[in-house]
Amino acid sequence: MTRLVSTAKGIGRLEDDGETVALLDLYTADLGAALQAGLDIASIATAAVRDRVPAAQAQLIAPVPRPSKIWAVGYAYAGHRTEVGYTGTAEDPVIFLKAPSSVIGTGERIRFPKAAPDEVDYEGELAVVIGRRATDVPEADAYSFVAGFTICNDVSARDVQKGRVPGRAANVTAAKSFDTFTPMGPALATLDEFADPDDLRLRTWVTGELRQDARTSQLIHPVPALVSYLSRQTTLEPGDVIATGTPAGVGHKQGLFLRTGDEVRIEIEGIGTLVNTCA
Amino acid sequence: MTRLVSTAKGIGRLEDDGETVALLDLYTADLGAALQAGLDIASIATAAVRDRVPAAQAQLIAPVPRPSKIWAVGYAYAGHRTEVGYTGTAEDPVIFLKAPSSVIGTGERIRFPKAAPDEVDYEGELAVVIGRRATDVPEADAYSFVAGFTICNDVSARDVQKGRVPGRAANVTAAKSFDTFTPMGPALATLDEFADPDDLRLRTWVTGELRQDARTSQLIHPVPALVSYLSRQTTLEPGDVIATGTPAGVGHKQGLFLRTGDEVRIEIEGIGTLVNTCA
Repeated sequence: MTRLVSTAKGIGRLEDDGETVALLDLYTADLGAALQAGLDIASIATAAVRDRVPAAQAQLIAPVPRPSKIWAVGYAYAGHRTEVGYTGTAEDPVIFLKAPSSVIGTGERIRFPKAAPDEVDYEGELAVVIGRRATDVPEADAYSFVAGFTICNDVSARDVQKGRVPGRAANVTAAKSFDTFTPMGPALATLDEFADPDDLRLRTWVTGELRQDARTSQLIHPVPALVSYLSRQTTLEPGDVIATGTPAGVGHKQGLFLRTGDEVRIEIEGIGTLVNTCA
Repeated sequence: MTRLVSTAKGIGRLEDDGETVALLDLYTADLGAALQAGLDIASIATAAVRDRVPAAQAQLIAPVPRPSKIWAVGYAYAGHRTEVGYTGTAEDPVIFLKAPSSVIGTGERIRFPKAAPDEVDYEGELAVVIGRRATDVPEADAYSFVAGFTICNDVSARDVQKGRVPGRAANVTAAKSFDTFTPMGPALATLDEFADPDDLRLRTWVTGELRQDARTSQLIHPVPALVSYLSRQTTLEPGDVIATGTPAGVGHKQGLFLRTGDEVRIEIEGIGTLVNTCA
């Protein structure tokens, strides 16, 4: 089990089933900076321990606080396509960018934007963190360019996304790029952790109520296909993130939007639980 | 006149009408890194000179080689709206993100992507470089958050943008994010350079033929309005770039696409000329 974390005290590794953070002897501020500086994930994962602190005191931040880019995938699960009435026929993944300035860590608060406070919704997603520069890579090699997995909440202002805000056109990127709209964490889990990295259970709860329960094996385009495809669109750089898309169970199709005080909890087996409260 | 450049030898200032680069006594690799590290543009512009080299030897790179984000504006001039038959009615700017990995400098080559080589087109644009963190700023204060202006070519694969590639949906971000699709430069011109920063002549030539000739005073949303608007969508961070949109005269509406060997030359008064050849 290797789950790496970025903390206010530097880069760490979770021990004792997540109760302890072993702070590592590395001189970059966080995992994102380490990857962007060219360190490989195996060296990071096996670095010497300089201190141990209780996890509750470690002050986790997002594993990669400022990715160079965040690619995200829309309509990625058949169940979600059905619930939103998706009518597209393209075979390729539906992709868009999210602003890096929207990233926050576990425990930080999701804030409703002044420009669109009324229809804020969650999307629990598996997120892929790139470990090495990847250009035109074949699917068979794709995992060798991946540092590991984390969890992402692709928070979305549905009124902006669907063009229901007076004066503005529908805009998926704007809808999902407001500050605090990309919670990520709690840890970056290296791939050796998983018996089958393409089949992980993902569940999302809002204030205790189970809303999403799916397996990543249901992704229309599995992770290697996404990495390969996106590496043909742009060079993928170390620390870049791919938010792989959300399964069925988003709020707006049930008439439910996030409200002040709601707690969104996303769990993926082997990675941990990402928890954020709405301010 | 203060025109700052990023070069292979560090940050410089153009002198002698652009013939000489005065290399500055600053210890960050480029203007983007300096802004991202928190230096203010006035301190950068007035730094001591450590060496002088002929401009032809300085090896200019993009002023900000890796912005944290690049916001871009679509349908930004009435003339361009007319030529493309734009039918949108939104009053707000039409905005999208471009991938930072697409940035190249003046003199570097635009490469046709394997995924979409046939309908590559230019867009000459004024680009705004952010100097200070900006969240919810009013239009009246907007320029105090701007480090300066540069020139951007918002290169676009029209077949991807318009959904003419079999198997894929129309996608503006993907169409404009391929590697080498955001040439920027040659210099970052500070605002004190301009008699009226909201009225600059912009011209684009392709292999010697004048294709675009407009003034930035024709922008539907002038620079202060764009900075203010985008600061309400996301926090704008130092080094972030706003590509303000292109005037009439893009190639695809004349049935013309870029071909191997074509030279795209974009000039904006007070900033300089951005030149890139197609590989």
